[in-house]
Order: sequence, then C-alpha cells, then structure tokens
Amino acid sequence: MPISHVSMRAGKPESYRQAILDSLYAALRETLDVPAGDRFMTLTEHDAANFRYGDAFGIARTDDLVYIAITLFDTRTVAHKAALFRRIGELLAERPGISPENVFVTIYDTPKENWSVGNGEMQFGPGKSSHG
Amino acid sequence: MPISHVSMRAGKPESYRQAILDSLYAALRETLDVPAGDRFMTLTEHDAANFRYGDAFGIARTDDLVYIAITLFDTRTVAHKAALFRRIGELLAERPGISPENVFVTIYDTPKENWSVGNGEMQFGPGKSSHG
Amino acid sequence: MPISHVSMRAGKPESYRQAILDSLYAALRETLDVPAGDRFMTLTEHDAANFRYGDAFGIARTDDLVYIAITLFDTRTVAHKAALFRRIGELLAERPGISPENVFVTIYDTPKENWSVGNGEMQFGPGKSSHG
Repeated sequence: MPISHVSMRAGKPESYRQAILDSLYAALRETLDVPAGDRFMTLTEHDAANFRYGDAFGIARTDDLVYIAITLFDTRTVAHKAALFRRIGELLAERPGISPENVFVTIYDTPKENWSVGNGEMQFGPGKSSHG
Repeated sequence: MPISHVSMRAGKPESYRQAILDSLYAALRETLDVPAGDRFMTLTEHDAANFRYGDAFGIARTDDLVYIAITLFDTRTVAHKAALFRRIGELLAERPGISPENVFVTIYDTPKENWSVGNGEMQFGPGKSSHG
Repeated sequence: MPISHVSMRAGKPESYRQAILDSLYAALRETLDVPAGDRFMTLTEHDAANFRYGDAFGIARTDDLVYIAITLFDTRTVAHKAALFRRIGELLAERPGISPENVFVTIYDTPKENWSVGNGEMQFGPGKSSHG
C-alpha cells in the first residue's frame, strides 16, 4: 500500500515517465516486499515557473530533478527506508537514466488505520479482524 | 479543517468532478462534524501515463479510480476514520456513481499546531488562547 | 529541507507565481534558518471546478486563495511554526500582494530519516554518521 507521487518538469516523453514509475515500483517491490499490483502512483508535470530547486546539501541538481513523495505504513524501519532510497536511486539511474543527484525522495509515515484501499473499508486497522 | 486532494484520470466532465467534491464534503460534514464552509479541496486530472493503479488486495480497480488524500487533526479516532471511509464510499457511489472498488483513501494526521487557515495565525495550536 | 507545494487557481501570470515562491522561500529562510539553496517547491494551477474553498473559521476567502503545504523535519517547535505562518502571511501580502485571509498553510512533520535529498542516501537519519 505505498502510494507515491512524482513531480517533475514537463517535456519528457511518455516512455521516460513510464520508466520512472516502473523503476519506482520495482524499488518498492524489492525493498519493502509489497505485493504484486501494489502500484498506486500519480505524476504531475510542471512548467519552469512552477518547479523550483536549489543546490542545498552540496548536490548539483538540474531540470531533470524528480521529487518523489511516498506514503507508507508507519511500521517501516530505518533500514527499510535506507534500502528504499538506495534502490530508487540505482533503478532510476538505469531507467530512464536519471543521475542520482536528481532524485529527491520524501517519505510520509501513516498508521495502518489511515488507509482504505477500496470498498469503503479500513482494511488494515485494528478493526481488521472484524472484517473476517 | 480537513484539507483534501483528489487525483483522477482526465476526461470526466465538470459535473462529474463537482459531484465528487460535493460527496466528499458531505461525508466529512456527516462523519467528522466539521463546520459549514470547511470545504478545502483541490483536484488534479492525469493522463494515462501519469496515473497508475493495480489490483492489490483483491480489488478490481478501473480507470474510474479516485485517490483521495485527506489531512485531518490528529485527534480523530479509529471509529471516526472508519466512518469516514464508509461514508465516502457510499456517497461517491450515489453521486457521481463511482464503484466502491474505485475509491482509495489515505488520511494524514497532523497536530493542530500545524494549521494556519488564514491571517498568518496558528488558530488551533497551544498558543490559541493568546489570540483571545 | 523543507519541501513545499502551492495549489492555486489558474490564470495568474508567471511573475505573480514566481513572487509567491520567492516570498515563501524568504519566509522559510528567515524563520527556520534553512540553508541557501534549500528551495524545493512545486506549484499546481487549478480550474474553478478543481479548486474549492469555504468561509469556515470566519475568514472571507476569495479566488486568490493559496494552499501551501510544507513538509518539515519533526524537530520544529510550536514557536517555529507560528513564526513561519506569520512571516509567510506578511511576505505574501508584500509580494505578490495576497491578502492574509487568502493564505492557508498546512505543515507536515516527518522524521529526519524520511528524507533523501539526492544520491540515494539518507542524509539526516540515525545512520548519517556512517556516511562520514
């Protein structure tokens, strides 16, 4: 149940954007062991005026920068998160070929009770057993 | 003070999108007892390449899927959240007629001190009494 | 490492949107002492049907409303947040000239381990020292 959002500059072809989402999904599968089909992702493209970045923390970013926001269960450990960051960087470098300097990831932790993945139900919360 | 964001595929008429926001507002009013006019919502529409989903957790989703992200005070209980999920599912099924399989909701809890609903003030935080 | 997102109605010129992001950056610099170049921001523009607001909490909002979502380290105090809200209101009133009633800010706190500002690394987490 991760749900992810990617923000990037407009102008890249569809295949490039597909490769970003494919690589992100692969990284989530490999490092967090999420189930197949757990591929919940949106992407927005921004004109230059609506997309800013800087060189803070000694990293030379360019217009190829992607911001990736990932919402996870709050049960993930520091080791899980570090592995996820590393693998996203590696896989985006392979496909579509984004320099690791241009990959900026933020994780949002939320309790399991905060998710309804369909049917108006709280699938993962403390009331879960009452759903059988 | 919930603030909500809806992400969906592009191509639905305005009346359909209005109905989504109307139903979401009604569900928030009914289950969380938010005040009238507490209707803070944005919506983005995405082309196919910028919107992904899967069938994880045994739910058959389609291109009618809506992702709804709702930020709330962290004072809401599990029962509040479960009621909200259920009512959103029911009301979106009525108007605009979205199958409950296609309603994916995530809640973000934040402390009251994290909100400024206008005027540069922290209306609900511990310093609230100092505003008279 | 704040990362911010601004949502607003479409139709304002680029200079107006630039002024919003400039003022937001200045407020972050002044009140949170973030480093130069720590300017990570996206902005989306919405048609009327995709952008809603109300007059809750006695505030008369208009189509000039901006929603600002800011993700911070969870080390910031209530005083930091109050100062940030106040300064954003003041600076947006100066440039581009947005009434403080129309500035709606929400903060998201996340632990330092939830950030990777590039290179596939967890720069600020407990494993930080292992990066030298």
